[in-house]
Amino acid sequence: MWPNHGGKSGAIRKLVEKNGRKLEEMLDFSANLNPLGTPVEVIEQMKKAIENESMLYPDPDYEVETEIVAHVEGVNKNNVILTNGGAEAIFLVTKLFQSGKAGILQPSFSEYERACKAHHIEIASIVLSENRTWKDYKSLIKNLHVLIICQPNNPTGTIMDETEMLSLLKWTKQNHVMVMMDEAFIHFVDINSHVRLLSEFSNLIVIKSLTKIFAVPGVRAGYIVADKEIIRQLKSFTIPWNVNCAALGLFRALPKTEGHIKKTQLWLKNEWAWLRSELEGLGFILSHTAVNFYLLKDPFLEDHEPLILFLAQKGIVARHTYHFHSLEGRCVRLAVRTRLENECLVQHLKKWRQER
Amino acid sequence: MWPNHGGKSGAIRKLVEKNGRKLEEMLDFSANLNPLGTPVEVIEQMKKAIENESMLYPDPDYEVETEIVAHVEGVNKNNVILTNGGAEAIFLVTKLFQSGKAGILQPSFSEYERACKAHHIEIASIVLSENRTWKDYKSLIKNLHVLIICQPNNPTGTIMDETEMLSLLKWTKQNHVMVMMDEAFIHFVDINSHVRLLSEFSNLIVIKSLTKIFAVPGVRAGYIVADKEIIRQLKSFTIPWNVNCAALGLFRALPKTEGHIKKTQLWLKNEWAWLRSELEGLGFILSHTAVNFYLLKDPFLEDHEPLILFLAQKGIVARHTYHFHSLEGRCVRLAVRTRLENECLVQHLKKWRQER
Repeated sequence: MWPNHGGKSGAIRKLVEKNGRKLEEMLDFSANLNPLGTPVEVIEQMKKAIENESMLYPDPDYEVETEIVAHVEGVNKNNVILTNGGAEAIFLVTKLFQSGKAGILQPSFSEYERACKAHHIEIASIVLSENRTWKDYKSLIKNLHVLIICQPNNPTGTIMDETEMLSLLKWTKQNHVMVMMDEAFIHFVDINSHVRLLSEFSNLIVIKSLTKIFAVPGVRAGYIVADKEIIRQLKSFTIPWNVNCAALGLFRALPKTEGHIKKTQLWLKNEWAWLRSELEGLGFILSHTAVNFYLLKDPFLEDHEPLILFLAQKGIVARHTYHFHSLEGRCVRLAVRTRLENECLVQHLKKWRQER
Repeated sequence: MWPNHGGKSGAIRKLVEKNGRKLEEMLDFSANLNPLGTPVEVIEQMKKAIENESMLYPDPDYEVETEIVAHVEGVNKNNVILTNGGAEAIFLVTKLFQSGKAGILQPSFSEYERACKAHHIEIASIVLSENRTWKDYKSLIKNLHVLIICQPNNPTGTIMDETEMLSLLKWTKQNHVMVMMDEAFIHFVDINSHVRLLSEFSNLIVIKSLTKIFAVPGVRAGYIVADKEIIRQLKSFTIPWNVNCAALGLFRALPKTEGHIKKTQLWLKNEWAWLRSELEGLGFILSHTAVNFYLLKDPFLEDHEPLILFLAQKGIVARHTYHFHSLEGRCVRLAVRTRLENECLVQHLKKWRQER
């Protein structure tokens, strides 16, 4: 019954309409997009691209836009390949390890597993907890071709301690294990991208997406930054013209969006401080998130289906966690939205507390 | 030195600029797009989609748009999967035959070979000529997993005789050989799509693209029509959200575009009749095209590089044929453009004749 992803999908629509509501009127806390939305100039750039470029074959090498991304990331253009959203980036990188062995730091984004399966990759789940770090999995990781890390992590929103991460990168490099690091949510927090470590760690492949920070999941704009030999391999099996002209418009607008990113980081810091204290005040357990979503657990609840249905009846879409490894429905994922929406959520969670 | 594809790519730009011209001022006969352009209402639909839907996660099942395409094609929605342009469709279908054997009716679109190589598929080239039909290749075809046919064919523009095609489909079905038929150019000619034969031939997989007829290569909108079991398999390894919101707007506009398609077919018939007689009058040998492009051969020339460079100096981009199997540069491919552009081409080809 549960759809694979958040957002207002057809499956969610059916669930909501069964409850006598219209999906369009629901508040969506299930997708983890920037509630500050898309900068107006970015929308304009994309519309202009549709108007002026839809009738042109994109340059199959996307030279101009690749150069822009390389400049923003501080690397050479040979270190970059543009992709049809972060999703294609994940599928392309995993293809490098076809029929091999991958480890996934769990719980994490379910598409890693799906991409591995599509490429007949054997999957090992590495569940970190307060008592278990990656070091407890050394013998397992040693036998992997690639270790997949989402940083900041989806669905928890957490960030691995930097010293810990550095020692993991060093150790995997020594043991010839590649690391695929998905930084789809890194723009929401003021930390350095691991792209800066590329020259030191040739085993590192970083994936980025513009979907979340610019709230443009419909446009499909992502990229991969890695050693130039890896990029060359990826290019050999990437479909031609994988990136559409609206996404190209977005890439070209990228250098002018620093203000939007800074503004988002500042807003989130304040909003989360407030929201966190409200929700903890109601007795919910929250993940130590650094970004625009978090796990919420009602300590009195095992399977969180009743909470999801309660919120749906109140007009709120929460993200179930049935497909997240080691969570399996025992919490929900919620987005940090605008103050008005967050207040609405808090009010209904207060009612949930009172009614039980 | 020669780029893989037509269109105004970065590689073509370098060639042209070396000759002291600006690419923007060149007439592009190298890309095979509809010179009647994109219907205004289609452009509007796509811009509206960027404005209203870029901030929404597309329904991962694309239910509405899949239903529309299924209706247009007269099949069930379980027989359809939408793709990121025709290019992704080719890559997805060939993945079904990973590490197998494919035959390609040659000369044909070079992406079939590239997609096969990306999936470690052994390729057999089947070159048809006036003296050799597919029947001469029976023992070869029998051992294939899939036979790839472009119909109408790129780069020749030709169509296989319908009786011949039917007997090929019957024979491949009996011998358990799948047929991938790429109908990217079918809208330009008033013939029936092979989609109508799906119920009879479960070994048939049809690929379509909206790129050519609507002149929107920047938007990336294609689809696959096949047996529902094949579609189910394809869905299992397709990347999520592979189709962007502008392409979805295009799919939704599809039912209203019949007039544009009819108008294009009528225009092409007249224009080609005129252009053909002009070019044959100059002594050029032309392929028996049914669509909006054709092969042109100067009987006095072996390698056609001098002709490509001559035209480039005159401001005309022709499509080289170095990467087309069994052509290898011994002709050029040209698009049927507007009357004004075609007249310009004819004038310069007349000069080419006089100067040699």
